[in-house]
Amino acid sequence: MFESAELGHKINKETYKKEVPILREALLDAQLDLLQSARFPVIILISGVDGAGKGETVNILNEWMDPRHIRTHALDEPSDEERERPVMWRYWRVLPPKGEIGIFFRSWYSMPINDHIHGLSKNSELDQQMERINRFEKMLADEGALILKFWLHLSKEKQLIRLKSLEKDPKTRWRVNPRDWKNFKIYDRFRTVTEHVLRRTSTAEAPWTIIEGVDPRYRYLAVGKSILQALRARLEAGDTHLPPVSAPPVMPHIDSLSVLKRLDLTQRLAKEKYENELEKYQGKLNLLARHDNFRKISVVTLFEGWDAAGKGGNIRRITGALDARLYSIIQVAAPTEEEKAQPYLWRFWRHVPRRCRFTIFDRSWYGRVLVERVEGFCSQIDWMRAYSEINDFEGELVRNKTVLVKFWLHITKDEQLRRFKEREKTGFKRYKISEDDWRNRDKWEEYDFAVCDMIDRTSTEIAPWTLVEANDKYYARIKVLKTLCEAIENAL
Amino acid sequence: MFESAELGHKINKETYKKEVPILREALLDAQLDLLQSARFPVIILISGVDGAGKGETVNILNEWMDPRHIRTHALDEPSDEERERPVMWRYWRVLPPKGEIGIFFRSWYSMPINDHIHGLSKNSELDQQMERINRFEKMLADEGALILKFWLHLSKEKQLIRLKSLEKDPKTRWRVNPRDWKNFKIYDRFRTVTEHVLRRTSTAEAPWTIIEGVDPRYRYLAVGKSILQALRARLEAGDTHLPPVSAPPVMPHIDSLSVLKRLDLTQRLAKEKYENELEKYQGKLNLLARHDNFRKISVVTLFEGWDAAGKGGNIRRITGALDARLYSIIQVAAPTEEEKAQPYLWRFWRHVPRRCRFTIFDRSWYGRVLVERVEGFCSQIDWMRAYSEINDFEGELVRNKTVLVKFWLHITKDEQLRRFKEREKTGFKRYKISEDDWRNRDKWEEYDFAVCDMIDRTSTEIAPWTLVEANDKYYARIKVLKTLCEAIENAL
Repeated sequence: MFESAELGHKINKETYKKEVPILREALLDAQLDLLQSARFPVIILISGVDGAGKGETVNILNEWMDPRHIRTHALDEPSDEERERPVMWRYWRVLPPKGEIGIFFRSWYSMPINDHIHGLSKNSELDQQMERINRFEKMLADEGALILKFWLHLSKEKQLIRLKSLEKDPKTRWRVNPRDWKNFKIYDRFRTVTEHVLRRTSTAEAPWTIIEGVDPRYRYLAVGKSILQALRARLEAGDTHLPPVSAPPVMPHIDSLSVLKRLDLTQRLAKEKYENELEKYQGKLNLLARHDNFRKISVVTLFEGWDAAGKGGNIRRITGALDARLYSIIQVAAPTEEEKAQPYLWRFWRHVPRRCRFTIFDRSWYGRVLVERVEGFCSQIDWMRAYSEINDFEGELVRNKTVLVKFWLHITKDEQLRRFKEREKTGFKRYKISEDDWRNRDKWEEYDFAVCDMIDRTSTEIAPWTLVEANDKYYARIKVLKTLCEAIENAL
Repeated sequence: MFESAELGHKINKETYKKEVPILREALLDAQLDLLQSARFPVIILISGVDGAGKGETVNILNEWMDPRHIRTHALDEPSDEERERPVMWRYWRVLPPKGEIGIFFRSWYSMPINDHIHGLSKNSELDQQMERINRFEKMLADEGALILKFWLHLSKEKQLIRLKSLEKDPKTRWRVNPRDWKNFKIYDRFRTVTEHVLRRTSTAEAPWTIIEGVDPRYRYLAVGKSILQALRARLEAGDTHLPPVSAPPVMPHIDSLSVLKRLDLTQRLAKEKYENELEKYQGKLNLLARHDNFRKISVVTLFEGWDAAGKGGNIRRITGALDARLYSIIQVAAPTEEEKAQPYLWRFWRHVPRRCRFTIFDRSWYGRVLVERVEGFCSQIDWMRAYSEINDFEGELVRNKTVLVKFWLHITKDEQLRRFKEREKTGFKRYKISEDDWRNRDKWEEYDFAVCDMIDRTSTEIAPWTLVEANDKYYARIKVLKTLCEAIENAL
């Protein structure tokens, strides 16, 4: 795998001096086109062997291109805000928006590789992590990102020479730290592990480019030209960068059986019983949130459901039991400009709670496979891939000890009509009825299909859907509170 | 001060039941108008005596209004990301955008009050903090925010009764923690200190409203109606909420003396000397950034100057000396939608670095008093108040051990022309010349005035401007590097 990067590539000074101005101009041109079109972000990973010139390469890229539109991220030790969230959160929060370039000096590969080399993870765990990275990068690519991954290589012998020469020169001595020498001692293991990682993660969407790191001039030109080529190709490809994949067919609805129709919407709870149960479960929820172990977990709960199915009322029964400092409610509306410049899930990642906190989503990332699907706001291939991206996202949450509880509030079409009319009469609820609501009602059948698909494809063992029979508000609220309590209880 | 809030206000159940639906409807209506007009944000502070029902009041507000457009912030212990930045950073990052409501359960008053009560700050320090808060709130108000500050009051006797009754009921016992009892013991001191704080910070822009906290129904109605009234008044006032203040006159330019004209632009540095000095100061900067004490500070440096004065080149000489993981460059361009929905300085606050990091601004918050002033992008009163807001902002940075270094790169008009022409010839720099650059050139004199005003009004002892004679690039770069090194050295 590293054969071509151990051949002793070298560029003489003269050639370099001739080529750099041309390359710089072309890179700047391409960068300007990227910026002006703002069609996609560029994500550059600079990884490799210690001493292979990663830092210098990053500096050169900043020098050659317009540094105002490059963000360099060298994520070292996670902060406590990062540690309390899924591992990928720190990368999501700094993804470059469309039109910009993000250079990752330490990337999502650093920790898995280090952990494995130092014996902190098994082979199978490393492979799992790589698989997750592949899925993450595929998602980025599907969202349009151009991903360029560079591995700067040095043979063992060349690494030794390089570290020694850096150390001899007082001006560069600081670049060599004890960790570098420690790493040098395990060069062979490092090489085996990283070769494995590179092999596992060189995908069609995001292949690795291995570059010999010995000669700086060669290294800079190789990285620079490689970026230029990829950038140009992508700019010229227009919006057709994705192969014309047709989405797999959606499950046809042959008979009238469906998970929704199976629900018994006649279930009711008498007012008195409701009030007792409400007190019981609100009290319980309150106690759970003050449990010692609650400090080690976090809770994400989301509400989807028909308009007027009672999302707001249910959320208020939850928040009514909680200390105001513990929760935040995110009402999912149209994305902002900054959100539109990012992958679809970015605007949900930014609200992932830290430990000991609830985030309650009033509508959620499932908008992609509900409203966006039905209204045609995104293409079929986009919402089809959303199912697995969502499963991955939820997997990250759950792996980070987040209790994830998903509610679908189900009512009949008749009950909805009754509630719409009632709301129009009751003053202070009037704000809740909009033209959209009436329009959505006309598409009941289409939404029905979309909901059933959603449940089939995203009700997983780690993140099951709870379907709530919500024709009776009392019954629904207690079921929601009870389910939430049980989920938290299980996690403590 | 608390007289009216110790009268025993009480609302009976019947009145309450009659009034609440009307109030809710009106609040919802007002909130919807707020949201749709998106003209200003609403900032609500709920503070007061322990046991006076702050948490419940926040819950009620979330229940009465549309919680999807309310964010409740109960900022407790700062995270390490927050601790490494100026104290106000954590509030800036969660300010509500225009159209939204932010409720602060613990606010910027909590820490100063607590610190003072527990003897951690002197009277004079408390007063200084209050003065800074006044200036912060005035800035928010000037930016259009509606600020509503509520103080829920309980007399000593009533607090005792309340804490005891909460403790007696198993369902509310959790609300009383040891800290509450500890606080009760120092009620008198708490009262004296908070009265002082309330007096000092009841300003025209952001007065305190003191509300008796004994009777929940009274408390809820009082807070709710107060919010409604303020919100309605502001919505109906249209955009004329600010009194028609005319800005103070700008210093007329009587003679031809100016700080800029005083600069000796003939200063030069020979290439050889430059190269030696460059190596020297880049080496020094590099060493400084690796100094042990550097971990305790951070660096913010900003570049303003004429187009083509060499901002980019200077920045690259700095970054060339630094490890890529240490710095980020912020090129200040047009604000995004999310930034436009916030006070002017928000988009700079979000880039304030943590400890041991450089943020380099290519253009900065001074745009307000340069381009926005000259081009008329904001009103005179807006850029006039910007001077003191900027001084406050920079004061916060410096108080947090941020080394702040501000450069004005000065060239003559002739030199600019020469550089424009040269750039048009040199391929890879062509991207730097735009029509704006030529247009700005036509307004040289106006910019000249604006720059001199800026320097006079914002070159402070804690954050002086460094005027850089930049006709000779070599001279300028060395002066910049040397100044930066000295500033960091002084701080270590």
